[in-house]
Amino acid sequence: MNIEEMIFSPTLILNEKICRRNISIMAERASRSGVIFRPHFKTHLSIEVGNWFREAGISAITVTSVAMAKEFSDAGWDDITIAFPVNIREIEELNRLSAKVKLNLLAESSEAISFLGRKLSGRAGIFIKIDTGYHRTGIKQQNFSQIEEVLTELERYENLNFKGFLAHAGHTYKAGSNAEVSVIYHESVLALNTLKQKYLKRYPHLFISYGDTPSCSILNDFSEVDEIRPGNFVFYDLMQVNIGSCSYADIAVALACPVVAKHADRQELIIHGGAVHFSREHYFLPDGEPCYGLAVESGNEGWSDPIDKVWISALSQEHGTVKALNQRFFEETEIGDLIYVLPVHSCLTSNLMRGSRITDKQIYF
Amino acid sequence: MNIEEMIFSPTLILNEKICRRNISIMAERASRSGVIFRPHFKTHLSIEVGNWFREAGISAITVTSVAMAKEFSDAGWDDITIAFPVNIREIEELNRLSAKVKLNLLAESSEAISFLGRKLSGRAGIFIKIDTGYHRTGIKQQNFSQIEEVLTELERYENLNFKGFLAHAGHTYKAGSNAEVSVIYHESVLALNTLKQKYLKRYPHLFISYGDTPSCSILNDFSEVDEIRPGNFVFYDLMQVNIGSCSYADIAVALACPVVAKHADRQELIIHGGAVHFSREHYFLPDGEPCYGLAVESGNEGWSDPIDKVWISALSQEHGTVKALNQRFFEETEIGDLIYVLPVHSCLTSNLMRGSRITDKQIYF
Repeated sequence: MNIEEMIFSPTLILNEKICRRNISIMAERASRSGVIFRPHFKTHLSIEVGNWFREAGISAITVTSVAMAKEFSDAGWDDITIAFPVNIREIEELNRLSAKVKLNLLAESSEAISFLGRKLSGRAGIFIKIDTGYHRTGIKQQNFSQIEEVLTELERYENLNFKGFLAHAGHTYKAGSNAEVSVIYHESVLALNTLKQKYLKRYPHLFISYGDTPSCSILNDFSEVDEIRPGNFVFYDLMQVNIGSCSYADIAVALACPVVAKHADRQELIIHGGAVHFSREHYFLPDGEPCYGLAVESGNEGWSDPIDKVWISALSQEHGTVKALNQRFFEETEIGDLIYVLPVHSCLTSNLMRGSRITDKQIYF
Repeated sequence: MNIEEMIFSPTLILNEKICRRNISIMAERASRSGVIFRPHFKTHLSIEVGNWFREAGISAITVTSVAMAKEFSDAGWDDITIAFPVNIREIEELNRLSAKVKLNLLAESSEAISFLGRKLSGRAGIFIKIDTGYHRTGIKQQNFSQIEEVLTELERYENLNFKGFLAHAGHTYKAGSNAEVSVIYHESVLALNTLKQKYLKRYPHLFISYGDTPSCSILNDFSEVDEIRPGNFVFYDLMQVNIGSCSYADIAVALACPVVAKHADRQELIIHGGAVHFSREHYFLPDGEPCYGLAVESGNEGWSDPIDKVWISALSQEHGTVKALNQRFFEETEIGDLIYVLPVHSCLTSNLMRGSRITDKQIYF
C-alpha cells in the first residue's frame, strides 16, 4: 500500500533510513573520539527507535524525566541517566527504578542530595550539574564553595556514588555559526576539565559528560570529554539546519498534513496541521515573518529539499496556513492532497505526535 | 487526601467550581439573547467536562476535527458541528459519523461539496464558512460569486442540507480592548446578516453561527446571530485576561509544577514544567520580555490572583524558569514544593496535559 493511502489526518512520517544513518554517524563520531555515547531519548520518545539505537550497539541512555526513565526501563533499558535536576516528589518511582536499573541522577544542591541520601532505597550515581553559560540549571563553574558543599553532603551517604560533572551547553541553540558553537564547546569543556583536574585525586573514577546536538554535530573531536549525550540529532529539524548542525537531507521526520482549503487571492493553502501537531516553535525569515515549517516533496527516496517559496506562515490550534508564493506549487496542489512539512523543532513535534507515527516499514498508530 | 500529596510531576489542576460557573454564565448569556449555545469542545477535550455541559442543558456541540467528533460521539453526543473546512481524506470516518449523529460540516469550495455530495454515505448539514476579517479560512463576505458557486453545487446533492453561514472572528484574539472586540463583533455580524438577508428567501431555514470567546464574553446581546460557539471560556487563560474577556478569578486551570532547583544569584526557580506541558505560547511583558505563565497560590477556595513579580520567563522541553523577583516568595519556596501556574493559552496546555488532570473531586490520570 502506498504510504499516502494510509494517511487521513496529520501524521508524522519517520524516514527510517535517514534516522538510522543519523544514529550510526553519531555513534561513529563518539567511537572515533573514544568517548561513551549515551544518547538522549527525549526527541524520539519511541521504543522502536530505541531498538535502532540498540542495534547500533548502544546500551546506555539519557532521558529527561522519571516518567521517561520508567518507560524505557519497561522496554528493557537498564542504564539510564535522568538529565534533569532530581524531582524529589517522585521518590517512590525513583525507588522502583533504582531497584531495577543502573540509575544516574543530577543534583545541584545539598538539599536534593540530603533528601536522596535519606530516602532513596536503592543506589544511584550522582552527577553534579554544571552551568557552563546556558544559565538554566546547574552550579556555576566558578562556584567552588557550592560544589564543595554538595560533595560534602554526598559523601555522607553510602547509597549515592559521585560520578562526575555534567553540562548541557544549551546556548549553542542560539549560536549563529559553526564557529560560535565551537567556541561554546571549548569554553564548556575547559570549565568541566578544570573541575575534573581539581577533583580527580579525590575521585579517581570521576568523569565528565557533555550534551547538545549542535556541538556533537559540528565538532569532530570529543576526546576532551568522557561522554556525550546528544538527542535531537536522531531526527534533526529546521532549527538545527539554521544552526549549521545538519543539512535538510538529514532531517528524518516530516509532518504530512491534508489540504483543506485554497485561497488564491492571498496564495495560501490551509492544512489540517496546527499548534497541537507542530508546536508553536518558529523562527523568523529574513523579512521578519515567522516560519513554522517548510514544505517538501515526498518521494521514494525520502523527501526533497524545501520547495522554493512555500512555508508555514501561521498556526492556530489545528489549522496551518501555508504561504505558497510558488505559483506552480499552489496551482498543482488540490484539496485533499497531502503537504509534507519539515518541523522547526522535532522534539516538540515528536512529543505531540506520539500517537500517530508512520515509517516506510511500519505504522505506529 | 490533600491534593498536593497526589501530585508528583507536572499536573493540570482543574477547578470544577470555576469551570461549572463559566459554563453556566455562558449558557445564561446565550439564553438571554435567545440564541443556540453550541460550545466548542476543543479547549477542554474531556468527557467529564462535557458532562458538566450536559448538566447545564447543552445538547449540541462544536469540535475541530473528525477525531474529536468521533471521541464525543462515542461519549453519547449526537449533534456535532465540525468547525473546520472538511478534510475529505477522512471520508470513511465521516461516513460512520453521518450514520450515527446529526452532523454539520463546513465547506468553502465547490470541490469539497462535490466530493461530499458524491461520497458521503449519510446526510450532513453544510455551513458555508465566511471570512469576516480573520483571513484564515472562509470565503470573503463580499465574494458573492464564490458563495453562489458553492450553493449551486450544494443543491445538486440530496444528502447535503444547506444550514447557513458560519464565521469565527479569530482576530478578536489580537484586540487590544473591549471596544475593539465589540467593533470586530459588529462588523462580522453585519457581514453575516447581509448574507442572511440576501439568501433568506431561497433558504427560509438559513441561520448564522458565530464563534470566539472574546466576543461572547465581552458583548452582552447576541440576538443578531442565531448560534454562538465559544470554546476557550470553559477554562479561560492569561491571553483572555489580557484581551479583557475575563478576570484572573475566572481561570479554571492551573499547572502544578514541582520545584527542582533554586538560583539565588538570578532569583530564579527551576520547575519541572516545560514546553511539553505548557506549550510555547507566550505574550510580552511591558519591558519586552516573554511571559509563559503567572504563578498563583493555591488554597481551599481555588487560587489567588497572580503573585506579585513572579512569572515563567523561559521554557525548554521540560524545564521552566520562574523569575521570582518577589524576595519573600523566592525565599519561602523550597525544592520539592509545587508552584501553580496560570497558563497563557489553556487550549494548548489542556491538549498537552490530557493524560494528567485533577479536579478537587476526581483524579484523571
